[in-house]
Amino acid sequence: MADAIDRFYGVIPAGGVGSRLWPLSRAEAPKFLHDVVGNGSTLLRATWDRLAPLCAEDRLLVVTGEAHAKEVRAQLPELIEENIVLESEGRESTAAIGLAAAILQRRVPDAIIGSFAADHLIGATDRFAAAVREAVEAADAGVIVTIGIQPIEPSTAFGYIRAGKPLKIPAAPSARKVDAFVEKPKEATARRYLASGEYLWNAGMFFARVDRLMEALAESNPALAAGINEIADAWGTEQQAEVTARVWPGLEKIAIDYTVAEPAAARGELAVIPGYFQWDDVGDFAAVSRLRKSTNGNGVTVHGDESNVVVVDGSGLIVNHTDRVVAIAGIKDIVVVDTPDALLVTTAANAQKVKQLVAEIKESRRPEVL
Amino acid sequence: MADAIDRFYGVIPAGGVGSRLWPLSRAEAPKFLHDVVGNGSTLLRATWDRLAPLCAEDRLLVVTGEAHAKEVRAQLPELIEENIVLESEGRESTAAIGLAAAILQRRVPDAIIGSFAADHLIGATDRFAAAVREAVEAADAGVIVTIGIQPIEPSTAFGYIRAGKPLKIPAAPSARKVDAFVEKPKEATARRYLASGEYLWNAGMFFARVDRLMEALAESNPALAAGINEIADAWGTEQQAEVTARVWPGLEKIAIDYTVAEPAAARGELAVIPGYFQWDDVGDFAAVSRLRKSTNGNGVTVHGDESNVVVVDGSGLIVNHTDRVVAIAGIKDIVVVDTPDALLVTTAANAQKVKQLVAEIKESRRPEVL
Repeated sequence: MADAIDRFYGVIPAGGVGSRLWPLSRAEAPKFLHDVVGNGSTLLRATWDRLAPLCAEDRLLVVTGEAHAKEVRAQLPELIEENIVLESEGRESTAAIGLAAAILQRRVPDAIIGSFAADHLIGATDRFAAAVREAVEAADAGVIVTIGIQPIEPSTAFGYIRAGKPLKIPAAPSARKVDAFVEKPKEATARRYLASGEYLWNAGMFFARVDRLMEALAESNPALAAGINEIADAWGTEQQAEVTARVWPGLEKIAIDYTVAEPAAARGELAVIPGYFQWDDVGDFAAVSRLRKSTNGNGVTVHGDESNVVVVDGSGLIVNHTDRVVAIAGIKDIVVVDTPDALLVTTAANAQKVKQLVAEIKESRRPEVL
Repeated sequence: MADAIDRFYGVIPAGGVGSRLWPLSRAEAPKFLHDVVGNGSTLLRATWDRLAPLCAEDRLLVVTGEAHAKEVRAQLPELIEENIVLESEGRESTAAIGLAAAILQRRVPDAIIGSFAADHLIGATDRFAAAVREAVEAADAGVIVTIGIQPIEPSTAFGYIRAGKPLKIPAAPSARKVDAFVEKPKEATARRYLASGEYLWNAGMFFARVDRLMEALAESNPALAAGINEIADAWGTEQQAEVTARVWPGLEKIAIDYTVAEPAAARGELAVIPGYFQWDDVGDFAAVSRLRKSTNGNGVTVHGDESNVVVVDGSGLIVNHTDRVVAIAGIKDIVVVDTPDALLVTTAANAQKVKQLVAEIKESRRPEVL
């Protein structure tokens, strides 16, 4: 049998609208297709580039919506056609990752997969790679595995993982049992988590042997697993279109956290590898502001043509995707996103409210700008 | 001799860019040409309509820049051609009002003029008219006259007039001597002014017999008076163009406050009529916010298409002169002015800083948006 890392396949579910990043992120061009933090690479492309050194390019799969296929192919010219799994509609992460796993299982029965959101930001690629290698080894030992990020601040924006006792897997020495997943905490709780040293950020990365993943899913959600297997059996055959059209829209919409990870944790069969690298889900413009440092030394970060922006006694993030002059006076930590058909004005502290704005625009006379 | 009011001529100097109202007010379309407070009338048109009942339309003069002549004629179709005085370049209020007075003096030697900025907002037209009638009577008695506005709050945005003893002019019983002009005060001082009852806002309205005005100017600024008289002598003759082109650009740029009003006050020859009407110079967007009440009952005022604006947990003034969706979250008393080539974001409390923004844009790569 080949080494574990040589049977490792990366799955990139590229879905999710990122509505708190509107009007940068749109239904037609969601977050993962954008260079959200302005480092010269879209989030999707950066995800690919981070994984390519860990598995040959023919072992990277992308699951995305049919509406985004063209742009995904344009951003990832190395993506081979049989590794792109197109969804007629989003059915959440269990269906997306499960189908990729089931398709792979039929090609490479002892494959190990790892899933990596297409719209997260990760730094320190070498330490990321080290954690992935260990996660792959732990998965090969038969457990479901996640990577938990070592927190650097008492964030209230992320969920946490409480790490338990070491699992003593020889090839994965830092693997620990996951005692529990905990929801986004209040600040006092987050401080306690950070101080305890026992909590890691839940970055939503999961690793498993494909057979183990499908078994775990069949146990927790038999109907969903059966639907996925039915599509996977037809995949690449003449029946693919018919079966997919019939079965896919009926699959339960549920996150893999609930179908696989939490049940595995409850059984004591979920491992966590601590990751000592920068990670962020870039969930809102406060994150973008935090991640993209001031470009002019006085607290103003411009994403676009800086010579169109004038700020007096203010600071914050200005995304200008038009040729307009943007002039700001007297607002600290402002967020301005200026696009041809929509303008957002908020502050970093209010960045979560963008979701509410989006909900209101959906009900307004102008839903086409979403 | 005709009654004083029948010899009354209104002069409307329509100049000044209103840079603190950028990007609504522009060099090419300054403040006075706009319906700044959204009451259905431009400031210039409202000034005209306020004066028309006080003097026949053939007794209303407008002094404005050549660049604005077309739009001024369009807004004031009743303005007769011999009553429009065009400036090749702005030379400030002494030259503008002085030339109008000198031209009138040659047509109607016993004319009384009143000057009224084209870009102020005034309410309670009947009380305005009453104050003007009394000011005209006082002017006919030989003094220079101003109307001082009864303050309704301790404003730090306006200059004040300290009113002295009654002048006992029979036809102008409320006329009082002006003891002093005082600059925009600090708030504590403004409170003291308001409490004293002796201070009025300086609204920059001046009334005088044309002969008295020109005498007063000749005394304080003989060179400027001589230049104005030289142009007035040529006005309407074949020499007008040559003389104006030669003399006008050399006239001193100085406000009539310094050349006529303050020297008259120093001589004890300046009268003030208290005006009991709403007045505002609409100097910045804080004033616009104050003057234009919330259009939707939750503290948000929209100037434009309200169905394009979505606000979550915020309040303030949104001027949208584009068809874009404007979405705002979490900022109180915001000011957003959205135009096709320029965007302003500030707050009411910072509205004065727009002047600084304009200065910076002047030095930027994009001065054409001013």
